[in-house]
Amino acid sequence: MSRLTHLDEKGHANMVDVSGKAVTTREATAQAVVKMLPETLHMISAGEHKKGDVLAVARIAGIQAAKRCSDLIPLCHPLMLSKVSVELTPKPESDAVLILATCKLAGQTGVEMEALTAASVAALTIYDMCKAVDKGMVISEVKLLEKRGGKSGHWQVNP
Amino acid sequence: MSRLTHLDEKGHANMVDVSGKAVTTREATAQAVVKMLPETLHMISAGEHKKGDVLAVARIAGIQAAKRCSDLIPLCHPLMLSKVSVELTPKPESDAVLILATCKLAGQTGVEMEALTAASVAALTIYDMCKAVDKGMVISEVKLLEKRGGKSGHWQVNP
Amino acid sequence: MSRLTHLDEKGHANMVDVSGKAVTTREATAQAVVKMLPETLHMISAGEHKKGDVLAVARIAGIQAAKRCSDLIPLCHPLMLSKVSVELTPKPESDAVLILATCKLAGQTGVEMEALTAASVAALTIYDMCKAVDKGMVISEVKLLEKRGGKSGHWQVNP
Amino acid sequence: MSRLTHLDEKGHANMVDVSGKAVTTREATAQAVVKMLPETLHMISAGEHKKGDVLAVARIAGIQAAKRCSDLIPLCHPLMLSKVSVELTPKPESDAVLILATCKLAGQTGVEMEALTAASVAALTIYDMCKAVDKGMVISEVKLLEKRGGKSGHWQVNP
Amino acid sequence: MSRLTHLDEKGHANMVDVSGKAVTTREATAQAVVKMLPETLHMISAGEHKKGDVLAVARIAGIQAAKRCSDLIPLCHPLMLSKVSVELTPKPESDAVLILATCKLAGQTGVEMEALTAASVAALTIYDMCKAVDKGMVISEVKLLEKRGGKSGHWQVNP
Amino acid sequence: MSRLTHLDEKGHANMVDVSGKAVTTREATAQAVVKMLPETLHMISAGEHKKGDVLAVARIAGIQAAKRCSDLIPLCHPLMLSKVSVELTPKPESDAVLILATCKLAGQTGVEMEALTAASVAALTIYDMCKAVDKGMVISEVKLLEKRGGKSGHWQVNP
Repeated sequence: MSRLTHLDEKGHANMVDVSGKAVTTREATAQAVVKMLPETLHMISAGEHKKGDVLAVARIAGIQAAKRCSDLIPLCHPLMLSKVSVELTPKPESDAVLILATCKLAGQTGVEMEALTAASVAALTIYDMCKAVDKGMVISEVKLLEKRGGKSGHWQVNP
Repeated sequence: MSRLTHLDEKGHANMVDVSGKAVTTREATAQAVVKMLPETLHMISAGEHKKGDVLAVARIAGIQAAKRCSDLIPLCHPLMLSKVSVELTPKPESDAVLILATCKLAGQTGVEMEALTAASVAALTIYDMCKAVDKGMVISEVKLLEKRGGKSGHWQVNP
Repeated sequence: MSRLTHLDEKGHANMVDVSGKAVTTREATAQAVVKMLPETLHMISAGEHKKGDVLAVARIAGIQAAKRCSDLIPLCHPLMLSKVSVELTPKPESDAVLILATCKLAGQTGVEMEALTAASVAALTIYDMCKAVDKGMVISEVKLLEKRGGKSGHWQVNP
Repeated sequence: MSRLTHLDEKGHANMVDVSGKAVTTREATAQAVVKMLPETLHMISAGEHKKGDVLAVARIAGIQAAKRCSDLIPLCHPLMLSKVSVELTPKPESDAVLILATCKLAGQTGVEMEALTAASVAALTIYDMCKAVDKGMVISEVKLLEKRGGKSGHWQVNP
Repeated sequence: MSRLTHLDEKGHANMVDVSGKAVTTREATAQAVVKMLPETLHMISAGEHKKGDVLAVARIAGIQAAKRCSDLIPLCHPLMLSKVSVELTPKPESDAVLILATCKLAGQTGVEMEALTAASVAALTIYDMCKAVDKGMVISEVKLLEKRGGKSGHWQVNP
Repeated sequence: MSRLTHLDEKGHANMVDVSGKAVTTREATAQAVVKMLPETLHMISAGEHKKGDVLAVARIAGIQAAKRCSDLIPLCHPLMLSKVSVELTPKPESDAVLILATCKLAGQTGVEMEALTAASVAALTIYDMCKAVDKGMVISEVKLLEKRGGKSGHWQVNP
């Protein structure tokens, strides 16, 4: 098993040197799931025009969070994302909203953290907007689904 | 069931008016769980001094994220936290790190989102620092455990 | 005519001392107008569900900008807004979107700049989302409409 | 008329993929105009050394705002500006300050929003610093004047 | 000697609970000194109008940094400064610029860090603006001069 | 002696155009020294596991500050650091902590300010965490030690 790259030989945290890495196109997709009461899901997903804003606000929050990832996660490198998309899909069969976030750039370091941060913050935003009616919502299954590019190449979560 | 307070009668999102609310002491505790490979958990929790930094970095990231909550979650009110604590406990029996975040203030609005944001960002930071050795880590059970203060008073998650 | 309060007797800019001011409820409403081609206005305001996102994104951007006002405007005091609302209304008769932003708090300093910043950033966001089809859009009539509270009391723009 | 590029086929807002775009030198100039009472203009523009700070503060605020554009405008890409300049010119003949902001970079996406944001925030800063003596100031004619670079090439506002 | 309040009994860093503290008026003054070549000092302090901007920019940078203190210093509480002033005085006798920063608020926690941060960032800004002609500048004597308010009351540096 | 590059011919501050500069690998190392009481130094450096957090928190604060440099220092260009490291070494012989910060990137502009900002904020964080026991701490000798890359090439402080 390799070592934790963010710690030097003394165990001190540092932002690792990526200047020797190749600039390649990198892409990552992460997910988060927000479980809620069936009534809550109905309120935010019902076709009714009026409720459309909950998912729109969460989408924007996720996109903006991806751009602030290096500000939030101490050892992340600042980077210039060339694409961020956040999709939110109500899943009535499991009383949940499924969030998929994809980030992309041409750079020296991967965008896994950006995708995970986007998915997490979109999920937190749904919690915020619905907490008045459903404090028991749970965010779970926040994980990386797939990544491409970089030295380690293609990686995909086990099905 | 009450309505989503963040949406007005047209379904438009707005930051709700809390100026009529009483200033009371408010406190909230939230959790997040990071599941990982047993070897990863061993690397970050082994008593060895050298590895101590992973949990210390995640703790700091969580504290700072609590302070930035209103910047990340679009409809959260800015507020002046009087306390933030983030505790990270390795749970070898479940191959996981348990994160507990507590926030407190005297104000007109609750601190649930601050506690949830602190726990989520601490979890994301653990992912970041260990992803070189374990891309399959999963963040789950992100939820509010307890809140005190405000009009709705004491609330606790169902055991 | 009174002097510029942000400059001291040497003409140096400083954040003025408001600690002697009374804590009162303060509210301010500002506007901005975005003029565009009739086709552009049609694209973003047509009742069609699909286009709803432009105004929703601008609304969120305006709300978040109000919270960041003291970060953007060098001599503004940090403050804890208790309410922010941003309303965007298509005005087909003048080929424009009218933006009204209202901010509120109980504090020692007014919220005019927060309302003006919210309206401006909402307007810039509309520009951003439509610039691919209409680079000639113009933002105008950005002004304070009304303020309440504080020593100077009620103020309203001349009709 | 082309479609709104920030909305996908479902009308959902996303940060568009620019990774296929060429890296070219891009430059944009935008303006804003702040109309005020003649006495206010006199106070900030009089040759007197003491008043010099108002325009200097507005210039700095505009420059810093250009750098924060992707943080303020939800769907803007983060980018590395290679130049920002903000010029403020008192126009006694029209009781106004004219603000010109120019941004430049070599990148995959244009800098129109950065220039417009710089001009707008410089204008808001003038309002802030003079509002104690002139609450009726109006910001207008915020618009793109010219852009160069990118696929769409040179564009200039109609005279 | 008392213990380090930012560390709990396990040595873990946390943002300490100030909710039990009294709200009092608190004020702090800190300094920084920037030593430079005599020619550099002459360039930025000569009465000539043209050079006025260096000190004006440093003053603004210091004021804005005070407002961002809790964002920069991990365990600082967010707070609402009611006053920030930054004064920069060329000291030809010692080839230096003396920076004095004063912060004030009514709150539950002191403003020493805000004053120290304002002084430090103003000093760094001078370095930035003059580094093309003088890379050897040194920032020194960054220290708290005086504080008032709070449980520990008045404190002054030893002369 | 060359002129101050951040000021134009009118003495106005602007972010200088670096688009014509070559992209080279640039690296800079800066230092800061925090002087304190011998007891304070003992508390934070004693081998005891429990106190380890003070230096870990300061290290993280320094790294994050490097990433925010262009946000703090008005005329700094935004840039994408490829490496940041901050080392803190207790120096019992001089009752001080020595801080060394190194930043690196491939870009068109140097990273001196990033290294100086990292060292300064790490020093301020030590002050914050120890101020309850030692208000008289002094930060000094904040200076650039060495830089490489760019047109001006290698530069090293005089010994």
